Amino acid sequence: MAIKFNVIAEDNKTYARLGKLRTGRNEIETPVFMPVGTQATVKGLTPQEVVETGGRIILANAYHLYLRPGAELIKEAGGLHRFMNWPGSILTDSGGFQVFSLAKLNKINDNGLVFQSHIDGSYHDFTPEKAIQVQMDLGADIIMAFDQCTGFGVNYEQAQQASERTTRWAERCLETHTRGDQALFGIVQGNFYPELRERSLKELVALDFPGYALGGLSVGESREEMQKILRSFGPKLPGGKPRYLMGVGTPEDLLEGMVWGIDMFDCVFPTRTGRTGSLFTRGGRINIRNSKYKNDFSSLEAKCNCRVCSGYTKAYLHHLFRQKEILGMRLATYHNLFFLAQLMAEAREAIGRGDFARYRNDFLAEYQ
Amino acid sequence: MAIKFNVIAEDNKTYARLGKLRTGRNEIETPVFMPVGTQATVKGLTPQEVVETGGRIILANAYHLYLRPGAELIKEAGGLHRFMNWPGSILTDSGGFQVFSLAKLNKINDNGLVFQSHIDGSYHDFTPEKAIQVQMDLGADIIMAFDQCTGFGVNYEQAQQASERTTRWAERCLETHTRGDQALFGIVQGNFYPELRERSLKELVALDFPGYALGGLSVGESREEMQKILRSFGPKLPGGKPRYLMGVGTPEDLLEGMVWGIDMFDCVFPTRTGRTGSLFTRGGRINIRNSKYKNDFSSLEAKCNCRVCSGYTKAYLHHLFRQKEILGMRLATYHNLFFLAQLMAEAREAIGRGDFARYRNDFLAEYQ
Repeated sequence: MAIKFNVIAEDNKTYARLGKLRTGRNEIETPVFMPVGTQATVKGLTPQEVVETGGRIILANAYHLYLRPGAELIKEAGGLHRFMNWPGSILTDSGGFQVFSLAKLNKINDNGLVFQSHIDGSYHDFTPEKAIQVQMDLGADIIMAFDQCTGFGVNYEQAQQASERTTRWAERCLETHTRGDQALFGIVQGNFYPELRERSLKELVALDFPGYALGGLSVGESREEMQKILRSFGPKLPGGKPRYLMGVGTPEDLLEGMVWGIDMFDCVFPTRTGRTGSLFTRGGRINIRNSKYKNDFSSLEAKCNCRVCSGYTKAYLHHLFRQKEILGMRLATYHNLFFLAQLMAEAREAIGRGDFARYRNDFLAEYQ
Repeated sequence: MAIKFNVIAEDNKTYARLGKLRTGRNEIETPVFMPVGTQATVKGLTPQEVVETGGRIILANAYHLYLRPGAELIKEAGGLHRFMNWPGSILTDSGGFQVFSLAKLNKINDNGLVFQSHIDGSYHDFTPEKAIQVQMDLGADIIMAFDQCTGFGVNYEQAQQASERTTRWAERCLETHTRGDQALFGIVQGNFYPELRERSLKELVALDFPGYALGGLSVGESREEMQKILRSFGPKLPGGKPRYLMGVGTPEDLLEGMVWGIDMFDCVFPTRTGRTGSLFTRGGRINIRNSKYKNDFSSLEAKCNCRVCSGYTKAYLHHLFRQKEILGMRLATYHNLFFLAQLMAEAREAIGRGDFARYRNDFLAEYQ
C-alpha cells in the first residue's frame, strides 16, 4: 500500500473528521491544507521554511513540470522530492485542470487531447497513459487520474460526455499505473448536474481508488453553486479513504469543506494573494499596502507565533511592499501559510473534541 | 567612543592588516565586506540569513531611506536596526554618491544642493547639516560625511572646487553631529588628480575623524585608474583607524584593496549580479542560466559549505532562474554573500599568518 489512511475521530455535529494519512515519506494529520509549489517551488520559500510554517505535503503541477523542465529531467534528478530538496510528501495533479484553464485546448476525443503550451504555443499530445507516465517520472507520493474538466454553464450533454470520458480515462490510468510507492486518486466529475455527479461517483467508487477528489470546481461558478456540490457529495465520498477538495483555500472555504467531511485541500490563494500584500489576520484579510499601515509599528497579528509576526512590524511590511522588495513577498507567503496551518491545527483539535461547529463559528465571527 | 578599532596583525609582504572593529552592536573582524541593504533590506534575504552568510555589518543608503519611507518614520520606529530587525551593525552612506549618480542634480553651491528624486522627480534641498540629521535619525553605528562626488574626466578646476568644498562640508558635518553612539567617517575626494587627493587627505586627517573612506571611485574610470588611486592612497590613510574603500566588491578588487591596507568594503555586486543568475565559484563566476547546467546535478561549488551548495543542484538553480522564480534570486544572493564572507575569512586568516600574498595568488590562480 502506497498510503495508509485512518479516521481517528469524528465531529459530533458535522461530517468533519480527524485522520492520519501515512505516505512513504511522513505522517500527515488531516484535514490538511497543501501549499502549492507549481513549478517545484512554493514561490519564494525554501523547503525548510515550508516545513516551519506547518507544511507536510505540497502540491506540484504535472502540467507545468512536463513543459519545464520536463518530467524526464526530474526523473533523472532522482524524482521531484530530490530535485527540489523537499523532505515531506508531494501530490501532483494530472494536468487535466491546467489543460482546461491555462493551455489552448485544440482537439479532444476519447483517445486524448492536443493542447498548446501557454508558454510558447507548442503542440502536445496528451492521453491518460501519458499523464500517468509523467506523474510516475515525477515520483510524487499521491498522483491524480487524468480527467476532463468542464466549465460552469456547459449543457447537460457536454457535461455528460466529459464525465463519462473521465470514467473511461480513469480505467486507463489505473491500467497504466505501476508504481507501488504512489497512490493514484480518482476525480469525480459531472459538472453541476447532481445526476451526473452521482453517476461519476458510483463508477469511480467501483474502480476502488485509494482516495477521491471532487474535481471540476472553481471553474467560474458562484460560491453557492460550489457549496451545493460540496454538501451533496462531500459526505458521499467513501468514508474510509481520503477525500480531497481541489483548488480550495480561503479560511471560510476550508472550514466549510471540513464540515462536509473533506480531508485534503490545496489552493494558490494564500501564496498568490500574499505576494500582492494581502495578509491573513484573525480579524480578516488586510492589504498591507494600505497607507494606514505606514506608521503602524505593531505586529501583523498578535495571536500569531510565526517569525514574521514576532520579528517585523506592519510599518516595515508596508515599506517592503511599497518598494516592491522581494522580502515582502517572502514574509507574506510565510505568514499566510503559517496562518492557514494554524487554522487547520486548531480545527483538528476541535474535531478531536467533537466541538468543531463551535470552533468554526467562533473563528468566523472574528474573521468576517 | 562610538567605535573601537585595533590592528591585530600586519601581513609580511603587503599592506594588508587584520583588525577588530567594535561598535555598540558587535565585534567585526576586518578586513570585512559589508552587504548592501539599500532600502532597509538586503534584497531577498532575512536578517537572520544575512548573519548566516557571515554578515556582521551592512550598508544602508541614507538617500533612499530619506525618500522612502522617510528618516523620521524610521526614527519613530526606534531606528533602522529595529525597523528592519537587524541584529548587527549598520553603516549608512550620506547620499553624496547617490545624488551624483541617481538623482538629477539641479543646483549646487557652497551651502548645499538641490536634487530631484529619481522616483518621482520631487525637489529636495540638501546640506551637510541635513545629511547628518537624516543619518542621526536613521541611527546607524557608522555614518558618512556628506561629500561632493565628481565623475571621471572632469577638469582640474572642477575637481579642485568639489574637493575643497568636501573639506568645508566635512567640518560642518562634524559640527552638526551630536550622537555619541555613532562614528562619523570622513571621505577623501580629489578625483583622479593625485595632488588634489593629497590635499583632501591632509585636510581631512587634520579634522581627526574616527575612520576614513576613499570616495569618488567607481565613477566611470578604468580599473587601472582606480587601482592607481588605491595604491597611492590606501596606505596613506591613517593606520590606526579603519580604512574604507567605497563601492568595491568583486573578489579580485577585494583582494587588491586588502593588499593596499583597506579594512572595509561594500558593493551591490554580489547581490545584484546574483539576482541575474551570476554565481561565484572557486573557478570563477558562472551564469547559471546557461543551458549547459540544465542537466547538471552536481552542487554549485564543492568547496562551499553554504545551505545552497549542500541542498540544491545546478540543474535546480537553472530551473528556478529559467522560470524566474523568486527562490532562485534568494539562493543566488545567499550563496554569493556566503562565498565573499568565506573569501574574507580566509584572507584574514592568511594575513594573521603573514602569508596573504600567497593566499591571494592561489585564490586568483584558480578563480581567473
